[in-house]
Amino acid sequence: MYESLSLWNNAPVRQLILDFVFAVATPGGPNFIPPAERIATFDNDGTLWCEKPAVIQLFFAIQRLKELAIANPSLLEQPSYKAAAADDLSYFTSLYPSNPTEWENLLHDTHIGMTQSEFEDQVVTFLSREIHPRFGVPFKQLTYKPMVELIRYLEAHDFKVFIATSGGMTFVRPVSEEIYGVSRERVFGSNEIFESRLTNHGPVVYRKAKLFDLVDGLSKPVNIEVHIGRTPILAVGNADGDVHMLWYSETSPYKSLQLLLHHDDADREYAYEGGAEKVLQLAANHNWHVISMKRDFLKVFS
Amino acid sequence: MYESLSLWNNAPVRQLILDFVFAVATPGGPNFIPPAERIATFDNDGTLWCEKPAVIQLFFAIQRLKELAIANPSLLEQPSYKAAAADDLSYFTSLYPSNPTEWENLLHDTHIGMTQSEFEDQVVTFLSREIHPRFGVPFKQLTYKPMVELIRYLEAHDFKVFIATSGGMTFVRPVSEEIYGVSRERVFGSNEIFESRLTNHGPVVYRKAKLFDLVDGLSKPVNIEVHIGRTPILAVGNADGDVHMLWYSETSPYKSLQLLLHHDDADREYAYEGGAEKVLQLAANHNWHVISMKRDFLKVFS
Repeated sequence: MYESLSLWNNAPVRQLILDFVFAVATPGGPNFIPPAERIATFDNDGTLWCEKPAVIQLFFAIQRLKELAIANPSLLEQPSYKAAAADDLSYFTSLYPSNPTEWENLLHDTHIGMTQSEFEDQVVTFLSREIHPRFGVPFKQLTYKPMVELIRYLEAHDFKVFIATSGGMTFVRPVSEEIYGVSRERVFGSNEIFESRLTNHGPVVYRKAKLFDLVDGLSKPVNIEVHIGRTPILAVGNADGDVHMLWYSETSPYKSLQLLLHHDDADREYAYEGGAEKVLQLAANHNWHVISMKRDFLKVFS
Repeated sequence: MYESLSLWNNAPVRQLILDFVFAVATPGGPNFIPPAERIATFDNDGTLWCEKPAVIQLFFAIQRLKELAIANPSLLEQPSYKAAAADDLSYFTSLYPSNPTEWENLLHDTHIGMTQSEFEDQVVTFLSREIHPRFGVPFKQLTYKPMVELIRYLEAHDFKVFIATSGGMTFVRPVSEEIYGVSRERVFGSNEIFESRLTNHGPVVYRKAKLFDLVDGLSKPVNIEVHIGRTPILAVGNADGDVHMLWYSETSPYKSLQLLLHHDDADREYAYEGGAEKVLQLAANHNWHVISMKRDFLKVFS
């Protein structure tokens, strides 16, 4: 049981994880932590699944615009719909944060104004059918297998593993059990404002016409408090939006571990530090440990 | 294992629960439901613990006012502090909903403006030390033992049990594991707005100066969606604020069960229908089953 993490290179980071889990899960040991306190939080985009050439949820929004324009071609007069029809990804990646109005319109047109279950059906269809432009497989297959193995390893040692995404909570939940083995209620993230509407068939949860608050940065500890109510002893992230989650984990009164996935593998995935400059810099001052995808992952995808 | 619920009178409601659990948990049976879908939600005030002569959280607020006035006697010039010092419960029970301004001031003075962990310490101290005016025991002991037994019984059949309170989420979480055996993350309810503040010791979750949204009625299905992401197959409530939760549970595509605790036991607890008129009326039209405290509970408290 102790010898595990077979998809991780036998290098310092793997050993660090094994030692940490052994230390906190060994009854009677000086760093033993009761199971109820063994909370781990993982970021999602870029930590558990691929976020390049853009976050998967953006591809979803573009696909939705395409579908809406097929049903109503007059929409193609609007720049976002036109860009979607032309598969102009750069148009969309340049929107945030430089053009908040168009960005909000994009979310408005694709993420609200339907029931929760209608939205989830759209998400499942998209993630199962639409193909990643480089890897040629459905988006939902682009999970990092060593990370999924780490989740299983932690659970085998009585950790409760949560996914704290900065993206949409309900963009991940419909597939979280299938692709990560993580229960829906252990996934949280950004949300629209939901509303319960009383219909002839009883209350239905509806995605109301109000915009996102992006749950990133300082909001992650708040979301952790609301959905867990404990400080994680293990936090795993990859980007500047994870700084506060990693730091928050450090405030645990227990032994804790912070891990940062560095995307340095252009051959098997991508190599980039954009959006992670700050967290990589802070990792050196804090005691956050960098996972090198190139060095530490024996395998990336399945 | 099947013969259980020893604190329940051998009457129709007990049998109904046993039959329901057997039906959904028996593999191969026509009503079998996979464990992941076996979600149960319980209201808290009046369903899991005593809510008379007033909800426990109101006693907490009054106690806090008393303590604040001891530290700063000039506060006694304000009517709420004066009423608290005089143990004038009726002053407070008449505030909501008739005097929203004073009600909001009460919450403001007692529930915000401190870190989350400071607030939780106050809650634990209050629930462990302060004594119920009629029963003469600390408030946290006033849980309904047959309900706690039901939670254990459901969990033994692979249900996930959540507490959907209309009161404060963080008023219940600090004791939920001790008094109900329900993990903190499975308790949700009304919340202040939290804020993460970066201190020299890292991010700290703070209860910001903003008021409650009371998560009752139509908001319960929304909170269930946010914290669980599934429709419960079993819902248990006692008051009009639970109507939408019970109704929402009925919309499950699976076999479902709705239970309503009727407080009809003046000898052992209280007899009242105030605040439950609507739900008792609807129970007859829907197929919601009424638990009579007098008839169905062999024991109420420990």
